[in-house]
Amino acid sequence: MLEKSGERRGLDAFLAPRGIAVFGGSSDPATIGGRTLAYLRKFDGPVIAVDGDGAETVRDSGQSVDLAIINLPPHKVEQAVEDCIASGISAIVLYSGGFADLNAAGAAAQERLAARCARAGVRLLGPNSAGVVTVRNGVYATYSHSIAYASPRPGPIAIVTQSGAVGTFALARGVERGLGFSRFIATGNEADIDIAECIEYLADDAETGVILVYLEAAKDGRSFLRAIAAARARGKSVVVLKGGSSETGAAAAASHTGKLAGADRVYDAALRAAGACRVHSIEEMLDVAQACAVAPIPAGNRLAVITGSGGIGVMMADEAAQYGLVLPPLEPAVVDAVRALIPLAGVLNPIDTTGHILNDFGLLPKVVDAVVGGQAMDIFAIFLATVGLDDAMSRPLVAALRRLRHTRPEKLVAVCMMATDAVRRELEELGVVVFDEPSRLVRLLGAMTRLRTPRSELLSNNEKTPTPHALDIVSWDEAGFRAALERAGLPFPPFLVARSATEAGAIARTLGQRVALKVVSPDLAHKSEYGGVALGVAPEDATAAYEAILARVAAKAPQARIEGVGISPMLTDGVEMAIGVQRDPDFGPVILLGLGGIFVESLNDVALRVLPIDRATALEMIDSLRASAILKGVRGKPPVDREALADALLRISDFALAHEDAVESVEINPFLVRETGGFALDALIVPRRPKGSEYGHP
Amino acid sequence: MLEKSGERRGLDAFLAPRGIAVFGGSSDPATIGGRTLAYLRKFDGPVIAVDGDGAETVRDSGQSVDLAIINLPPHKVEQAVEDCIASGISAIVLYSGGFADLNAAGAAAQERLAARCARAGVRLLGPNSAGVVTVRNGVYATYSHSIAYASPRPGPIAIVTQSGAVGTFALARGVERGLGFSRFIATGNEADIDIAECIEYLADDAETGVILVYLEAAKDGRSFLRAIAAARARGKSVVVLKGGSSETGAAAAASHTGKLAGADRVYDAALRAAGACRVHSIEEMLDVAQACAVAPIPAGNRLAVITGSGGIGVMMADEAAQYGLVLPPLEPAVVDAVRALIPLAGVLNPIDTTGHILNDFGLLPKVVDAVVGGQAMDIFAIFLATVGLDDAMSRPLVAALRRLRHTRPEKLVAVCMMATDAVRRELEELGVVVFDEPSRLVRLLGAMTRLRTPRSELLSNNEKTPTPHALDIVSWDEAGFRAALERAGLPFPPFLVARSATEAGAIARTLGQRVALKVVSPDLAHKSEYGGVALGVAPEDATAAYEAILARVAAKAPQARIEGVGISPMLTDGVEMAIGVQRDPDFGPVILLGLGGIFVESLNDVALRVLPIDRATALEMIDSLRASAILKGVRGKPPVDREALADALLRISDFALAHEDAVESVEINPFLVRETGGFALDALIVPRRPKGSEYGHP
Repeated sequence: MLEKSGERRGLDAFLAPRGIAVFGGSSDPATIGGRTLAYLRKFDGPVIAVDGDGAETVRDSGQSVDLAIINLPPHKVEQAVEDCIASGISAIVLYSGGFADLNAAGAAAQERLAARCARAGVRLLGPNSAGVVTVRNGVYATYSHSIAYASPRPGPIAIVTQSGAVGTFALARGVERGLGFSRFIATGNEADIDIAECIEYLADDAETGVILVYLEAAKDGRSFLRAIAAARARGKSVVVLKGGSSETGAAAAASHTGKLAGADRVYDAALRAAGACRVHSIEEMLDVAQACAVAPIPAGNRLAVITGSGGIGVMMADEAAQYGLVLPPLEPAVVDAVRALIPLAGVLNPIDTTGHILNDFGLLPKVVDAVVGGQAMDIFAIFLATVGLDDAMSRPLVAALRRLRHTRPEKLVAVCMMATDAVRRELEELGVVVFDEPSRLVRLLGAMTRLRTPRSELLSNNEKTPTPHALDIVSWDEAGFRAALERAGLPFPPFLVARSATEAGAIARTLGQRVALKVVSPDLAHKSEYGGVALGVAPEDATAAYEAILARVAAKAPQARIEGVGISPMLTDGVEMAIGVQRDPDFGPVILLGLGGIFVESLNDVALRVLPIDRATALEMIDSLRASAILKGVRGKPPVDREALADALLRISDFALAHEDAVESVEINPFLVRETGGFALDALIVPRRPKGSEYGHP
Repeated sequence: MLEKSGERRGLDAFLAPRGIAVFGGSSDPATIGGRTLAYLRKFDGPVIAVDGDGAETVRDSGQSVDLAIINLPPHKVEQAVEDCIASGISAIVLYSGGFADLNAAGAAAQERLAARCARAGVRLLGPNSAGVVTVRNGVYATYSHSIAYASPRPGPIAIVTQSGAVGTFALARGVERGLGFSRFIATGNEADIDIAECIEYLADDAETGVILVYLEAAKDGRSFLRAIAAARARGKSVVVLKGGSSETGAAAAASHTGKLAGADRVYDAALRAAGACRVHSIEEMLDVAQACAVAPIPAGNRLAVITGSGGIGVMMADEAAQYGLVLPPLEPAVVDAVRALIPLAGVLNPIDTTGHILNDFGLLPKVVDAVVGGQAMDIFAIFLATVGLDDAMSRPLVAALRRLRHTRPEKLVAVCMMATDAVRRELEELGVVVFDEPSRLVRLLGAMTRLRTPRSELLSNNEKTPTPHALDIVSWDEAGFRAALERAGLPFPPFLVARSATEAGAIARTLGQRVALKVVSPDLAHKSEYGGVALGVAPEDATAAYEAILARVAAKAPQARIEGVGISPMLTDGVEMAIGVQRDPDFGPVILLGLGGIFVESLNDVALRVLPIDRATALEMIDSLRASAILKGVRGKPPVDREALADALLRISDFALAHEDAVESVEINPFLVRETGGFALDALIVPRRPKGSEYGHP
C-alpha cells in the first residue's frame, strides 16, 4: 500500500509525474486520445505519443517517463501493460472499459491485469478511469470534455470519484463558479488503487484542503473510514456524495459498476463516525466546498440570522430547522444591547435590523459583538439582498466585515447576497462565505456542522482490537442465548423451562402472577409466527396454554425440535424497545435501536451506529428516535430509565465486538425499559455460517 | 370584491393605471421615493409627483390619474388618503409601514384606513407594500432595489407576495437567470387586497401563465384555495412558497406580520386539494417557474432517465425516489428495441446509452419512441453533461429534439446539461426544459407532477353546502358520543353502562368473555389519564375492576361527575387506529388518520386532508401512512379491512361536515380495524364553544 516515508509517495507518479506516455493518442481533438494529447500541452514535462512498440518508443525517447495513459480497446490492453512494465513505467491510468464494468469475463481479465501489475510493482488506476489532473503542474491526464471549456484555477479543492462522469461534471460546474482545484482522481473499477488510498494520499497533500468524494461502494469500508478520519484529523474537510441511496439508484449502480451499493443508513452512520460531511447532490457538494475553501469550520450548530427582511428571516429559520441548526433566542441583556444600537430592531433570532443596517454597515460588527457577548453563537448568517451588486454600498460593508473577522476569527460568518465577482472574491479572501441563495446557504452551513472530530478508534493505525473470547453457548435456543447474554451483563427476568404441561402449571403457580410462555426450540427464530407464544396467562391457565402452544407449533412447524416451554413472570409496565447488532459487509458490526415488537420493522424509526459506541453515543441514539417522546413519558406515564437502556446498548455492543468472528447478529426484542431498570424479554443470536444455512431469520 | 364583468377589473387600476401620483417622491435616487420616480420613467402615462396639497396637485395636473403611491411617515398617511379620495383616485399603493406590522395602535390605525377606503370605493394595497409592477407597460410602482440592476423581460411569470423582500429578491434572482415576468404584486399587511384576490385576478390575466406565491398566513383560507383552483382550472401553474413551516420560522413570521402562520401540514393538504405545487425555497420556486414557463405539465409521475453516464443516472434515480417520481423498468420488447438501436445500452431505467448518443443525436428520438411504445412514460430526462456548450454538437441535438417535440408534444422532455444562453433559449422555445443541475432538475420535475386537477368542490362559486342537521347528543359523555356516531353509521361494539359494582359483574358475566371497562363522565376527555380504564378483565373480576376505577378517578379527579362505568367485550384482534376531525381556523374541518393509542401523537405518522374527501382520498390516506405496512399484515398476521377503515373515515367526515357549526373536533381512538370490518372502541366529540371553556383536551 501507501509508502509513508521516502521522497516519492504512492500516488506521486500519477499526480506529479516526470514524464507521460500516451498509448492510443490521436491528432484528432474530437477523439478521446486527441483530447488527452491536447490537454497535456499544458504539462511541463515530456509527453510521448506511443506508436507501434510501446516499450521501444518510450526507451527511444530517451526521456524519464513514469506515467502511462492507456486508451486502447480491451484486447490490446494486456500487451500495452507489458510494454509499460518493460519500459520501467511505474504508474498506469487505464481509460479502457469492458472489464468488471461489462461482464464476468471482463472481471477475470481485470483480475489478471491487477495481478500482473502487482507482481511488477506497477500501480494501476482503473480500468474505466477518466484519469487524473493536477492543476498546478498541468497534468491533465484525462479525456474529460469538461476541461475543454474552462481551465480550473489552482485552489484547495480535490475531487476523488468512482464515476468519471460525476467527477468531471462536478469539476466543470465548480470551474464555472470560479472555485480553485488541486487534484482530480477518477478511480473507475478500482482493480488496484481505490478511493480510500486516494483520500489517504490527499490527507497528507499540502495542496489540498477540501476533499470531495463521490462513491457508490467502498472496496474496504474500514480503510475508507480510517482514511477519512486521518484527513479530518489533519484539519481537511471531507465531503462525501454517495450514489445508490435509493433502491432504484442502488440497482442502477450495481448494473454499471458490478458492485453492490452498501446499505445507505450504515453509510450515514459510518460517515458520521469518521467526521465527514455527507451531501446529497453535486450542487450541495460544491456549495460546501466553496464555503470550506474560505471559511473556518464552525464549533457548533448555533446560528444567528441577521436580516433586514422579515420574510427572508422566516424562511432561513424554516431551513435551519431542517438542516440541523438551532436559532437560540437572545437573552434580555443582548436584546437591550441590540436595541441600544437599533431602537426598532426585531430581537427574536432571526434578528431584524430593519433598513437601518443598509445606511450604516458599521452597525454590523457591533450587533454581532452584542450577540456574541451574550449567547455563544457559532455561526452568523447575514442577509443583504443585492448590496453586493452596488459598489458604493459594498465598500463600507467589506470594511465592516474585515473588522468583524479580525475581532471574531473563530466564528463562521456568511453573507447572503447577490454580488459582483470582485466583491465576492474580496470577502472570500477575508474568510467570509458569500452566497446568493438563502436556502442553499443555510443548507451548506448545516452541512459544515457535520464536519466533526472523528471517533478516536478510527485514528489508530491498527485495527480496533476488542478482547475476543470464545463464544460459550450451551444450546442454540432462547435458553442458551439468555444465558450467554446474562453473562455479558444483560438483565433478564426469571425464565424457567417446563418440559411438560404439569410442570408448566407448577412453575406458573410458584411465580404466583400472570406469566408469559414461549416455546424453546433451536429451529424457530421468530416464535410468535408459529403460535409459540402466550402472554398474560393466569397461573391456573398455564397448563392449558402449554398444550395449546405445542399444538400450534406442531401444526405450523412439524419439523421443529422442541426443548420445552419457557415461563417468565409477565412484565408489562414500561416501554418495549428492540435492540439489535448486525454485521455489515463493509463496516463490520452495527447496532440498531427502535421501538419493540413489530414497530421496529414497520415504522422506520431506528437509530443506527457503527460499533464500538460509548455511553454518550448510546444516549444520543436513544434521544434521536422519534419514539423518544414516548420514553420521556406521555399521557401521565413516568419517563423511563434512559441510563438502563444505554447500559443494555453498551453491553450488547461489547458482546458483539468480543464475538465478532462468531456472531452474525444479536437481537433483544423486546427489551422492556421501565421507570427504574429494564429487562430483556427475548433474545436471539445468529451465528456466522456459510450462506444457505437453514438457521436465521425466515 | 372582484368585479367579473365590465371592461376594467378589480386590480386594473394597479396593474394598468392611466396615470400615477406619487406622494413622497424625491429627486434623490438613493431614497425610496427617488427610486420610485426613477423607475416610473419607463411608464408611458403621466406621473405626478405630489408636493403640498395632494388633491390640488392631482387636479391641477389635468391628467387622468387613477393610481397613487404613498410613501410618507405613518402620521401623514391619513391626510394623503383623503387627498386621493378627493381627487378621484381609485387605487392606492401604501408603502408606509408602522401599522399592524408594528403594534396594536398601528393595527387600529390600519383598520380605520381600510374602512375609510372601503366607504369611498377606493382599493388599498398595503400598508407595508413593496408595490406593483407590470413589465409590459412599464409600471414600476415599487421602491425595490433589485429592479435597479436588471430590467425584467416580458414573460408569463407573475409574483404575488406577502413579503416585499422575498418577492423582490425572487424577482431579482429570476431576472438574473433570464426569466420573463408579467406582474409583481406585494400585498404587505393586506388591509384590503389579499393574496387570494391577486391570484383570482391573475387567473384571468392573459399575460400570466405561471403564478408564484409567497405567503405566511392566508387572510381567508377558503377563498385562497378557491382562487388557486380557479387559476389551475384555467391551466395556469400555481407555485406556492409558504414561510413559517418551522416553529422558529412561524414565531418570526408572527413577530414581523402580526399574523399567525397556519398549521403547516394543513397547508400541505389544502394546497394539494387545490392542485397547487408547494415548494420550499425561492430557488425551487424559480426552478419550477422556469420549466412551467416553457414546457407542458406532465400527465403523471413516470420518469425515464436517459444518460450516457452510469453515475449521474444513479444519482438522478436516488433523487427521483425522494421527489415522488417513479422509474418504471423497461419491458422486454422495449429492451429489444433499445438494444437494436444501441447494442451495448444499459436497459434498466435509467437507460445508459453509452457514448454512442454523443456521436449520433438522431438516436435520441428513436430511443424515446422505443420507450414510449412500450411503457407510457410521462417524463423524459436526458443527461448530456457539457454538450450545450459546444456549438457543433448542439446543432444536431436541437434538430433531434425538434423532431421529438413534434412527434410527442404531450410528453415533458428535459435536458440536463450546461449550455450557452443561445442553445438554452432555442430549446426552451421548442418547449424543452434545459437545466444544468441534475438534482434540481429531478426536484423540479417532481414538483411539476404536483400540479394537479383541483378538487371539484373548490371550483364552484358557492360555498360547499353539506346538509347540516341539528346535533342530537343526549349526554356529553362517551355514551352520548357513541349514540350520535352510531346513528352516523359508525360501527361500535356493545357498550353497557353499569351504575354499580354488582351491575358491572352481572353485565360482564352476561357478555361471557374478557371485557373492557371505562368510566363514563362528561368531565373526563382522556379517561386513561385518570385511571378510568381497565382492559382485558375476566368476567369474574369485573366487580372489583369497577370499584378500582371509581377509586382511582375519585383520587385523581374528585370534581368529575360520574355517570357509571361502560362495559364492552374486549376486542384485540386487529390494528388500533386513531381517526380525528379538527377545525382549522383557516381551512375549516380537516381529517386525520394515524395509528391508535399514544402513537398518534408521538410518532408523527399521520395522514391529513381538508374535508370533504371521497373514497379514493380515504384509501390514499390509509396507504400514505408509514404504518400502512402494519395494515397489510406483518409477521404472519392477515391484512386488515382497508375498505372498512375507509368507510369509517367517510362517515366521520360526513358527520363533521353536517355539524360543522356545532362541533370543534371528533375523535375515535382507537378504531380497531380487523381482518373483516372494524369497531370504534372509544369516541369523543368536542363542541364549539367560546375560548376558556373547561371542556376539551387537557
